[in-house]
Amino acid sequence: METVLSSSSRELRIGDGNPFCVIGERINPTGRKIFAEQLRRSDLSRVAIDVDEQVAGGAMMLDVNMGAPLCDEAGLMVGAVRLIQSRCDLPLCLDSSIIEVLAAGLDAYQGKALVNSVTAEDERLRAILPLVKRHGAAVIALPNDESEIPAEPGRRLELTRKIVDVATSTYGIAIEDIVIDPLAMPVGADTSLALRTLETITLLRESLGVNLTLGASNVSFGMPERAAIGAAFLAMAIGAGLTSAIMDARSPQLMHAVKAADLLTDRDPWGAAWIAAHRARQAAAP
Amino acid sequence: METVLSSSSRELRIGDGNPFCVIGERINPTGRKIFAEQLRRSDLSRVAIDVDEQVAGGAMMLDVNMGAPLCDEAGLMVGAVRLIQSRCDLPLCLDSSIIEVLAAGLDAYQGKALVNSVTAEDERLRAILPLVKRHGAAVIALPNDESEIPAEPGRRLELTRKIVDVATSTYGIAIEDIVIDPLAMPVGADTSLALRTLETITLLRESLGVNLTLGASNVSFGMPERAAIGAAFLAMAIGAGLTSAIMDARSPQLMHAVKAADLLTDRDPWGAAWIAAHRARQAAAP
Repeated sequence: METVLSSSSRELRIGDGNPFCVIGERINPTGRKIFAEQLRRSDLSRVAIDVDEQVAGGAMMLDVNMGAPLCDEAGLMVGAVRLIQSRCDLPLCLDSSIIEVLAAGLDAYQGKALVNSVTAEDERLRAILPLVKRHGAAVIALPNDESEIPAEPGRRLELTRKIVDVATSTYGIAIEDIVIDPLAMPVGADTSLALRTLETITLLRESLGVNLTLGASNVSFGMPERAAIGAAFLAMAIGAGLTSAIMDARSPQLMHAVKAADLLTDRDPWGAAWIAAHRARQAAAP
Repeated sequence: METVLSSSSRELRIGDGNPFCVIGERINPTGRKIFAEQLRRSDLSRVAIDVDEQVAGGAMMLDVNMGAPLCDEAGLMVGAVRLIQSRCDLPLCLDSSIIEVLAAGLDAYQGKALVNSVTAEDERLRAILPLVKRHGAAVIALPNDESEIPAEPGRRLELTRKIVDVATSTYGIAIEDIVIDPLAMPVGADTSLALRTLETITLLRESLGVNLTLGASNVSFGMPERAAIGAAFLAMAIGAGLTSAIMDARSPQLMHAVKAADLLTDRDPWGAAWIAAHRARQAAAP
């Protein structure tokens, strides 16, 4: 199954033998005080820096979240979408918990965007899916609802089925335009949580064949040497069937893990990308 | 299923929720001209250095191969076993293609060794399994025979079943004392080979539940930046169910991948080992 996204000039294919999709994650003021303050002043200069760094690191798509407190988030989303689309040709993932922000971002966006995100809550499904359909976008769906973030992979599969059923039957959204987040949780809180995520990935791929994405940094939250944990987790998750992740493309350790995983899962024919990247690093070395 | 090995003073448990078992791989003259020359002069001084380095790196067991051309390999194996057992308390994996070398090593060894290896060839099974049984040892088994190294996971499972049947029914060896090598092949030769190995791991774990080991360096053979490939492969393979590997414990990148994989597969309760290793590295830093 292939999820196709686009900017005004570039198409990106996720899943089905395509290289793992790195969705750059830094265009987000969460936990960044100075950036949040700049956004309150409608200063988007930091966005430009973050975009350039993610592009330089090898991001293939960018997640855009303008959720700073006391801001005109919709206005900032429109400004950020325009700025980013003038600066690079990567497709965007429009990330907000507020419907109006997603709507404004989709109106401003040129191409086929990924909407981040909907849950299995009836109210969210009713509000977000028509928007996704109207704009011909794709959507990230989280298998949790108002009552629970289920621990059991089987229950996550049930909630995923519900979302897929509603999106396809009620709203006519193609199943390949629904990207499921198997819910990556901090291993520091409970060391069994990463296994549940990996089991969910295997189960969702086997049962529905849908494409998947997750926030790769969640898993290592609160632990030391986070990049090493993230790199191992990404390799394991890609081995289990993960097809994309929202992650920091600036991290060579994470990017190396992803590219090695592409090579090892036969998504880098003849190892050409691996060898080319190695030669580029050699040429760049002092 | 738990495979228990021992030296004269230490027991090691593989599989079944125990930490991934790192079998140090350097005590082997293959591709090492100076070391092979020393062995021809019965000089085992390099063995001592290699043992110390693997132990310092975190090896939990050591693979011992004395296969240099024009040597008294049996005599060297006996000498190496005695030297290593006087120097450290790790269990050993006695590695040779020659029956007499394995027999001599087992005679000299104190504890329960792992014999590396037997194949599905009738002649090899008849020669090696009685030796394994007589010494109360465990054995690594490769699912290939005289006619083929099968590419298909299903065929590897068939040959594994044959080995397990013969070993348990004819020789009374416990199934937990049979460690299967799912055959890791160089991804540089054919980029689909690593996937076949990962599929074999999943299939063998689901079908037989046996413990597994493999030569982790094979996969990256001939490629640049081998440690990054090895680290990603180990994480993927551990995610799929691999329980041990013959690998170079001197590589921080490989060891990091293994310890992160332990954490992520719930084999490091509360992340205690991960955090302790981090603190030790901090304390050791200048």
